[in-house]
Amino acid sequence: MTEMQSGRSCLAIILAAGEGTRMKSQRPKVLHEVAGRSLLAHALASVAGAGAGAVVVVVGPDRPEVAREAQALLPSVQIAIQHERRGTAHAVLAAGAALAGGYDDILVAFADTPLVRPETFRLLRGGLAGGAAVVALGFEARDPTGYGRLVIKDGVLEAIVEHKDATPEQRAVRLCNAGLMALDGKHALAILEAIGNDNAQGEFYLTDAVATGLSRGLSAVAQQAPESEVQGVNDRAQLAAAEAEFQRRKRIEIMVEGATLIAPETVFFSHDTRIGRDVVIEPNVVFGPGVSVADGAIIHAFSHLEGAEVGPGATVGPYGRLRPGAKLAAKAKVGNFVEIKAAEIGAGAKVSHLTYIGDATIGADANIGAGTITCNYDGFFKYRTVIGAGAFVGSNSSLVAPVTIGDGAYVGSGSVVTRDVPADGLAVGRARQIEREGWAKAFRENSIARKSGAEKSGGAKFGEAKSGAAKTPD
Amino acid sequence: MTEMQSGRSCLAIILAAGEGTRMKSQRPKVLHEVAGRSLLAHALASVAGAGAGAVVVVVGPDRPEVAREAQALLPSVQIAIQHERRGTAHAVLAAGAALAGGYDDILVAFADTPLVRPETFRLLRGGLAGGAAVVALGFEARDPTGYGRLVIKDGVLEAIVEHKDATPEQRAVRLCNAGLMALDGKHALAILEAIGNDNAQGEFYLTDAVATGLSRGLSAVAQQAPESEVQGVNDRAQLAAAEAEFQRRKRIEIMVEGATLIAPETVFFSHDTRIGRDVVIEPNVVFGPGVSVADGAIIHAFSHLEGAEVGPGATVGPYGRLRPGAKLAAKAKVGNFVEIKAAEIGAGAKVSHLTYIGDATIGADANIGAGTITCNYDGFFKYRTVIGAGAFVGSNSSLVAPVTIGDGAYVGSGSVVTRDVPADGLAVGRARQIEREGWAKAFRENSIARKSGAEKSGGAKFGEAKSGAAKTPD
Amino acid sequence: MTEMQSGRSCLAIILAAGEGTRMKSQRPKVLHEVAGRSLLAHALASVAGAGAGAVVVVVGPDRPEVAREAQALLPSVQIAIQHERRGTAHAVLAAGAALAGGYDDILVAFADTPLVRPETFRLLRGGLAGGAAVVALGFEARDPTGYGRLVIKDGVLEAIVEHKDATPEQRAVRLCNAGLMALDGKHALAILEAIGNDNAQGEFYLTDAVATGLSRGLSAVAQQAPESEVQGVNDRAQLAAAEAEFQRRKRIEIMVEGATLIAPETVFFSHDTRIGRDVVIEPNVVFGPGVSVADGAIIHAFSHLEGAEVGPGATVGPYGRLRPGAKLAAKAKVGNFVEIKAAEIGAGAKVSHLTYIGDATIGADANIGAGTITCNYDGFFKYRTVIGAGAFVGSNSSLVAPVTIGDGAYVGSGSVVTRDVPADGLAVGRARQIEREGWAKAFRENSIARKSGAEKSGGAKFGEAKSGAAKTPD
Repeated sequence: MTEMQSGRSCLAIILAAGEGTRMKSQRPKVLHEVAGRSLLAHALASVAGAGAGAVVVVVGPDRPEVAREAQALLPSVQIAIQHERRGTAHAVLAAGAALAGGYDDILVAFADTPLVRPETFRLLRGGLAGGAAVVALGFEARDPTGYGRLVIKDGVLEAIVEHKDATPEQRAVRLCNAGLMALDGKHALAILEAIGNDNAQGEFYLTDAVATGLSRGLSAVAQQAPESEVQGVNDRAQLAAAEAEFQRRKRIEIMVEGATLIAPETVFFSHDTRIGRDVVIEPNVVFGPGVSVADGAIIHAFSHLEGAEVGPGATVGPYGRLRPGAKLAAKAKVGNFVEIKAAEIGAGAKVSHLTYIGDATIGADANIGAGTITCNYDGFFKYRTVIGAGAFVGSNSSLVAPVTIGDGAYVGSGSVVTRDVPADGLAVGRARQIEREGWAKAFRENSIARKSGAEKSGGAKFGEAKSGAAKTPD
Repeated sequence: MTEMQSGRSCLAIILAAGEGTRMKSQRPKVLHEVAGRSLLAHALASVAGAGAGAVVVVVGPDRPEVAREAQALLPSVQIAIQHERRGTAHAVLAAGAALAGGYDDILVAFADTPLVRPETFRLLRGGLAGGAAVVALGFEARDPTGYGRLVIKDGVLEAIVEHKDATPEQRAVRLCNAGLMALDGKHALAILEAIGNDNAQGEFYLTDAVATGLSRGLSAVAQQAPESEVQGVNDRAQLAAAEAEFQRRKRIEIMVEGATLIAPETVFFSHDTRIGRDVVIEPNVVFGPGVSVADGAIIHAFSHLEGAEVGPGATVGPYGRLRPGAKLAAKAKVGNFVEIKAAEIGAGAKVSHLTYIGDATIGADANIGAGTITCNYDGFFKYRTVIGAGAFVGSNSSLVAPVTIGDGAYVGSGSVVTRDVPADGLAVGRARQIEREGWAKAFRENSIARKSGAEKSGGAKFGEAKSGAAKTPD
Repeated sequence: MTEMQSGRSCLAIILAAGEGTRMKSQRPKVLHEVAGRSLLAHALASVAGAGAGAVVVVVGPDRPEVAREAQALLPSVQIAIQHERRGTAHAVLAAGAALAGGYDDILVAFADTPLVRPETFRLLRGGLAGGAAVVALGFEARDPTGYGRLVIKDGVLEAIVEHKDATPEQRAVRLCNAGLMALDGKHALAILEAIGNDNAQGEFYLTDAVATGLSRGLSAVAQQAPESEVQGVNDRAQLAAAEAEFQRRKRIEIMVEGATLIAPETVFFSHDTRIGRDVVIEPNVVFGPGVSVADGAIIHAFSHLEGAEVGPGATVGPYGRLRPGAKLAAKAKVGNFVEIKAAEIGAGAKVSHLTYIGDATIGADANIGAGTITCNYDGFFKYRTVIGAGAFVGSNSSLVAPVTIGDGAYVGSGSVVTRDVPADGLAVGRARQIEREGWAKAFRENSIARKSGAEKSGGAKFGEAKSGAAKTPD
């Protein structure tokens, strides 16, 4: 966070005081998430990536959660409160003393504009380093109607003209005002304080920094970013659009680095997902935060991963569910309808079907049969299951933790294991099978008779007294 | 259905007699579904929403299923049969006496055009209320080639000209004929009977109502709708396109009302899905008919819900499967690979993993362990399972219904529960674990020898005689 | 592969020697897959479909896997090695003697261009049959910048001009060079050998075959294909784009034939998927290779099928997982969280929930309860389970193979079945339930005390000594 550009220090002011009523949410707008982190976190990460060594977040008076999130994300953050909502310039001035803190560059960012790349903030700072006192950010709008236009002549920003005030000639300009700005720290406070509110809304607009700076003999320039980068979030549809743009970028980034996404539009990454080379990701995979996938791994369709490490050459899914603390070593296999939580799966070990492994360690090359359940919770405490290298756990077993299955040990199918199993030993815990000849035929005939309303006397001769239910004998 | 607009009564005639051969289906075209209900149902709902108090559905002679569906959807519907397919005007005339039934407004709709909004039918009716005898519906086609053009002068519809008959000037018109129409009830029958079939196909076209009306000194006007609304369904690709347009609308509607769809394009709603505020829906969720989700609930990825109620703050999935009759109370949790059918899950209760709960009631704050199965079916009858408040069901248990687990009771992991468990009591039903030292080692060595073709004499000393299989001792 | 067009024999030369560095992969580029088969396999299938009776694949010197794949796909293939990469004409000449093998038509295809349809190669061959010695393939590029242009006059191809060498007039031509070509077998070798490398890169370009042919008094023509068909694969994003185009085509093909895809953009087919009429496929379904679905079947959402046959009227999913060897007879049902591998499910049989069926045969109308597991693997060998017609397997049972459940037999819920069950008989293998009054209350109080750090003396009076864990008594 302390990096400087061209030796210049940088303060970022992030405006996060908007009401966000169009979100129709109990949650403050800037705490809504894109790719698993809040809009505010995106803005903080972006200015940090552009070298901002100090950050002020300007919040409204009625949203303490926003300040808490900012402090959680960046302990050094300064919180400023904008008590009344009187426009963007007014909001920036809420940063107060920090504006006169001697920073060379001051970046003004919006917490509801999560897609601005650090490179773009660096571009703005580059404008300051080049001598401008005010640097605005423009974008070419597909449909410029309603946006302010950047009027540029000979490389110099001459004005930002509101759409409604623009001449036909100015309206033909497609370079629109994104709102973000960089101000020279030596002049910022003076410029901001000089901005008036002589407009219909009676608000103080940051946009006016350009005219104000120019009127004081300072220079202004504009930089440019793609429209997709500066789109703001004001309602849930725009939130979804921001998510889509984030995902689009991330997918390309991951493919360019050498992973195969069979259907990239169906794979959803978190902001921090790391994917190795020659990884194959099938359609319909969702990554929550904190996942890394090593080279050569395969993530089959319909898998859902969060807080998990997938080792080289490991395979997950289809329908693999890795929860926080799942760690798959090299060539481990987690198959369909399998959930792994807080568990290490050793190299080459297989957990192939319909299994829950929680709070466990599974040794290398162990084989966990279909339907196995680690019974890790007693309603109050959680306990660990340890399964040794090369162990074989028969299908449909219940492993009642805390319990240890030794290296090379064998658990018979359908067992309930409550005691430790020695290495190379066998454990079986299941009832002996009994049979009754003809029972099913009698039961069937009786049931058919009951269904038709005429219960046959006699019928199934044993098994069930209670309410006629088809209980089989113990 | 009896609502009137501007005090005017309304009859809707829905044409449903088309053959639909391009669907290549055994099912009549208009019974194919969009968003979980038939095309015909969409048309019926739309005219009802526009205030049609009486509805005639015109069906072909060979598709009784269509009449049955119409009657099931709207018991008061009148069914008319078009015995020969001689054009749209001919089809409308099949409605017979209803046309002369004294209705002020007559709407003509198509059963294979499911996306017309009630508002659009109201627009047509508005044209009648404004004095026109014939109101046509136009749309601006991206590619107008092939469509009839609406020729309008000074707000008056002068003609509908077929593409092939159009002058170059008329072809430059992009307002095309959607086919839907509204007719003044006082003139409808006369206009329709005056339409001739002097054309290449020898058919009677409803389109000619405009020229026929004008020739009788009556006036005609046009209303307009977006192209997306008037797209018809003639093959499966168009069926998919209609579904996509329906979903697009529904997703926006739900987002605007304050729910978060992380990836809206991957969420599929039913026509009747209701989603509360601050609900979060992750990617890849499918809603069948009859689902409501209360405020603040979270539906994780890969969930599938139908006929279910999700209470406030409840969470479902990932991979949650709610079937008809599933009711989750506030803050209940249904986790991964869990199926709930005809069961109430109490407030704060958790069913987290790999579980089937069918025909059951689960009390508040109960905890159902991984792998639990309610054994609700005996092949003939279904029985209920009742689990009390605060009960704890250990993992991998089988609850053989009918059975009641009392409040605060505890079921040991891996148990088969066949009898009621008293409140605060414990039930365990599982075999005692036995061990055999060294068995696994001997078995392993023997198996390796068998694999290499040289079965080692001796080997695993007990367990299994039959066919050399690796059965463990009971 | 031996089919001839207009009685003409055909040799295809497939260039597969490119380095593919932009894939950033350990795997050769042409072995990456689209729709479940390699790019090379697509190219081979396409030229075979166009009647090529002989095929030479030109590979680089350092990628033996490519030759192996080609031979595996087409045993009669000839492999030629291009030892140095000196341009496309040089690569074609690597085919050597085959060029002078007396074939009427010689097709030059690219192994990294997987979407060219056989019909397009037939078009090229048609140009040869019409008397041209060289037939180039053009496409109308959305953005032609950078592509060579096909200069055509009076139906004759006059030149292929590189973008950088093109006049403004030529640049206005939107018909671009796709690279694929057909050469008359009588002239091919002479033309190719006459191509020089007098260009900036010093390479021999196949494109120059046009000028070379013309200079020898031979004629050249161009055929045309859509841009989507000739897109090559050079990086993972282009691989994904090729996959998307393949899927787009396949989805339309399947819908046109009379299947309903509710959300076609979410269904992923393999190159060889066969779907019957009136099949309904819900959103989010993935087909691996080797699947056929018969008429009237329903594939519910989130299903994943590979190597499987789904019979008429059968239903799969949601969350149905069919692995190789799964065969569902008519009206069989595989429900949610169910995996079927190498198993036949009889007509009308139901496997509805949370079940693993592997290496098994299930008779008609059998009912397999929720949570049933076939224990088919002992760590070394796999064994079969046979379940008779009309049998009922209670929920959460473990069937330890090899084992046979007779026709009409009944297995009690929660049983571990290790021995055969006779027809119409009952088998139960589960422990008798025991209860302890008040145990849960005592346990709860004790646990709460432990949680709060003050373990209550007394507490749960039996069950578990070890480490205080909440083990219930056996």
